[in-house]
Amino acid sequence: MRAVPGVSAVDLATAVAQWQTVVGKDWVFTSDADLDPYRDSYSPVRDEKEERHASAVVAPASVEEVQAVVRIANHHRIPLYPISTGRNLTYGGSAPVYSGSVILDLKRMNRILEVSEKNASALVEPGVSYFDLYRYIRDNNLKLWIDCPDPGWGSPLGNALDHGAGYTNTPFKDHFDAHCGMEVVLADGEVMRTGMGALPGAQTWQQFKYGMGPIVDGLFAQSNFGVVTKMGFWLMPQPETALLATVTAPRYADGVRFCDTLISLIYADALKSQTQVVSPVLMGPPDAELGPLLRRWDEGREAALDAYAQRKGVPFWTAPVALYGPQSVVRAQWAYIKERFSAISGATFNEDASYTFPLTDEQVRSVIDKTRAGIPNLAYFASRSSPDAPPLEGHMDFSPIVPMDGKVIVSALELFAKACQELGIAPLGGRPLFYHTRTVTLIYAIPTGRDPTANKKAREAFAKLMDIGAAHGWGEYRIHPEFMDKGVGYYSYNNHALLRFQERLKDAADPNGILSAGRYGIWPKHLRDVAR
Amino acid sequence: MRAVPGVSAVDLATAVAQWQTVVGKDWVFTSDADLDPYRDSYSPVRDEKEERHASAVVAPASVEEVQAVVRIANHHRIPLYPISTGRNLTYGGSAPVYSGSVILDLKRMNRILEVSEKNASALVEPGVSYFDLYRYIRDNNLKLWIDCPDPGWGSPLGNALDHGAGYTNTPFKDHFDAHCGMEVVLADGEVMRTGMGALPGAQTWQQFKYGMGPIVDGLFAQSNFGVVTKMGFWLMPQPETALLATVTAPRYADGVRFCDTLISLIYADALKSQTQVVSPVLMGPPDAELGPLLRRWDEGREAALDAYAQRKGVPFWTAPVALYGPQSVVRAQWAYIKERFSAISGATFNEDASYTFPLTDEQVRSVIDKTRAGIPNLAYFASRSSPDAPPLEGHMDFSPIVPMDGKVIVSALELFAKACQELGIAPLGGRPLFYHTRTVTLIYAIPTGRDPTANKKAREAFAKLMDIGAAHGWGEYRIHPEFMDKGVGYYSYNNHALLRFQERLKDAADPNGILSAGRYGIWPKHLRDVAR
Repeated sequence: MRAVPGVSAVDLATAVAQWQTVVGKDWVFTSDADLDPYRDSYSPVRDEKEERHASAVVAPASVEEVQAVVRIANHHRIPLYPISTGRNLTYGGSAPVYSGSVILDLKRMNRILEVSEKNASALVEPGVSYFDLYRYIRDNNLKLWIDCPDPGWGSPLGNALDHGAGYTNTPFKDHFDAHCGMEVVLADGEVMRTGMGALPGAQTWQQFKYGMGPIVDGLFAQSNFGVVTKMGFWLMPQPETALLATVTAPRYADGVRFCDTLISLIYADALKSQTQVVSPVLMGPPDAELGPLLRRWDEGREAALDAYAQRKGVPFWTAPVALYGPQSVVRAQWAYIKERFSAISGATFNEDASYTFPLTDEQVRSVIDKTRAGIPNLAYFASRSSPDAPPLEGHMDFSPIVPMDGKVIVSALELFAKACQELGIAPLGGRPLFYHTRTVTLIYAIPTGRDPTANKKAREAFAKLMDIGAAHGWGEYRIHPEFMDKGVGYYSYNNHALLRFQERLKDAADPNGILSAGRYGIWPKHLRDVAR
Repeated sequence: MRAVPGVSAVDLATAVAQWQTVVGKDWVFTSDADLDPYRDSYSPVRDEKEERHASAVVAPASVEEVQAVVRIANHHRIPLYPISTGRNLTYGGSAPVYSGSVILDLKRMNRILEVSEKNASALVEPGVSYFDLYRYIRDNNLKLWIDCPDPGWGSPLGNALDHGAGYTNTPFKDHFDAHCGMEVVLADGEVMRTGMGALPGAQTWQQFKYGMGPIVDGLFAQSNFGVVTKMGFWLMPQPETALLATVTAPRYADGVRFCDTLISLIYADALKSQTQVVSPVLMGPPDAELGPLLRRWDEGREAALDAYAQRKGVPFWTAPVALYGPQSVVRAQWAYIKERFSAISGATFNEDASYTFPLTDEQVRSVIDKTRAGIPNLAYFASRSSPDAPPLEGHMDFSPIVPMDGKVIVSALELFAKACQELGIAPLGGRPLFYHTRTVTLIYAIPTGRDPTANKKAREAFAKLMDIGAAHGWGEYRIHPEFMDKGVGYYSYNNHALLRFQERLKDAADPNGILSAGRYGIWPKHLRDVAR
């Protein structure tokens, strides 16, 4: 078994034996073979000495077992790293931030504890996946939707805690914002319920977020203040109908207006689902003709790109529009959206699909854009490879948050395109995603793999892109462990006052610093000057 | 000058002199005459020994002055009680929770620091009122609305921190939910910015709530973890049009269905503004005929009440519907709402007013239901008195949160009506208010005044109503200081694990326990066993 930093072999052996008593011998893993699946397969330091490894895994099946496991770790000062279903690819996967930590794998806690059709909510354990929740709802013919991120194998609870996002309407597409109430096991093994969950017999634990007094829920996201063992969610009631459509604009110069029109529709609450601005020219796979055009930055660039688009018959900008609701309201909204976009000469509108719910099983299979219909799937992974290139081994996502402002968006796209070119990297994506209610996230998937030289180049480029973003006042919303300290480091107002405050709270919540050391830049006291 | 508990006269005099140096002599108040306006004029223990009094008031004009004042208080261990504009009537007014505290009055910090029309947001100081912000927006012809609570004289920042609510669409009507980013002075005088505010040069401080890492904002609401000196808000873009309408149902027995129809519309996102269920029969001023009917609880009650309503020509249930948006979408929504309510036989629909924005000054004056058009006003106070009764001297609001479920709502109305009758009190209100997105708040204004005997009866009734609510799993969302410990006390899961966790955080954030001792049940360590 690998060593755990700061823990003697004797203490570790004692803890392992105690854990085995709690969860059973079958659910404590220490062999390399058993630990291998917990490695970060997208790691940018894969197989290098910097790669972060777990030393063991403990997988409890109940809150009581979590409490006991945590108490044992707290007694022996053993660093734990809780995971839910352990996906989170591009943001670290299952591997601990602090190498040598013991993974607290919560996958066995996979009960759907409650789903209320009337109040459109769910209460789930960490090991429940989007697939599980979808299937439960479908099997029970409940008129509810889930909102899932690209790959549907992850955990609603884990994704919310990492500030993940999806595709349906606000507030559901912002997964942390859609949560309501938690149960948390603290570092000393005590169990706590937040919001209305603290009221015995509460009737609104999954309905009212605040309870009375200060709201502590935010502390448990992107952090290490406790082990979340239950989480409530607001679900979207199944809409009567949906319309999936696409709007386009023909020319490069339409970009600002195209974005600003989308933005004004979002602000006016006329468009509530996740949209994104995709340029088939700028963001598609470059052919032999386009490649050189994309690499020129002279005055003729724009005209050349426009001419290329025209020759190929593709619009310069496109955006998906998904509208959900009663048919008559959806039609009125779509008419209004078309009216607004019609101010751009040459704008086109295509109704890609319309649905009346519920769908039959056959209809479900035929839905192309499944995430926009609340149907979890794994199609995303197929989209990460192309016929012209070897399959993507992994990627890190650079994801700066920029203002919802057409000018800023288009200039940020240019800025990062130039920077990537100078840095010699060719990330996928780079689309402006309207993930959160009032900002745009530009996600650049920077390839990683098994080649240390290429990984080193990817890491250096990643760091450089972060610097460029921060210099413009754009921070990331989420980040790979390899860059957590750096990412959080930009949030430095008044000599890192926010981080120092979070550290004070951390020391109070977890005095021995056993939980997820280093996660999102928060290190326990004894590692604060060492590990960072 | 009044004594400050735990502080020697010498220390206090030193602190006062130091504060005077910081803020100027004119802005430190210690005389009874100067302190009188800071008393809680609605207090249920007015003029009794239990009334909570300030010992002094310090009014800084800038963040730097707040920092200096707090540092002095922290050095001398003097309890401070920050207020913004100091309204918050029914929930304690300006008076401190811990009697003898020095009020930190932030009214002089009344700068509107930024209003972005494009991104529909504002950054304000604590002393800015709803009137101020409205006037600024109107004077600058910005296409923005504010969302205000009943009286418009309060502070957006203060109201959000107390979990106040208003009337326009989600998320704006939930004032804490509509905030985005804070600046906070901590108990040691350090200044911190949350969310994107921690990123120097951030472009999205008022647009993206999370930043990176754990979200601490919730800790500063209904609590005492810091002094909030700036707060960002999401504003509602001025809609193209608004329709204010009323739906009604004729019979007592329609109540459940009437509520459930409203609820399903809210869940379907077809109704996003604050609605409320008002019964002109149950909730109006009872005349000589109705009074006895309301006091009978036999089997004939329902039929007798229906007959009364029919004779008087009033519907049994009414609800306001406010729709905002492009005219064509509003019309489609309204048609859908009418279609849904038409399932109730005898339902009526009235279009009370429709507006196209912006309004002229004259139109603004003539808007009847101003809060639903984002226009702050003080009409609420007039509504608190009736021609048949003496003006209301004050009230405490009992405000349990109940599930959005017609059956529960109607039975809760009956339950509390019976209880009030048995307790011999006649609260105003008791309407089911759809304040928050997924719960209903029943607010009962229990009169308080200058008569100690009546106040005692009101307090006893209040305590009894809280017990009844908690026994049904309904806690309050907000409460008068006189009942904070009791109110928080119901949130007792696992031996008050949540409160104990909050206390640990409090001790870390404010080791000397100088800020707002006792607020929402959180006492500093040295008072924890004494004051409660």
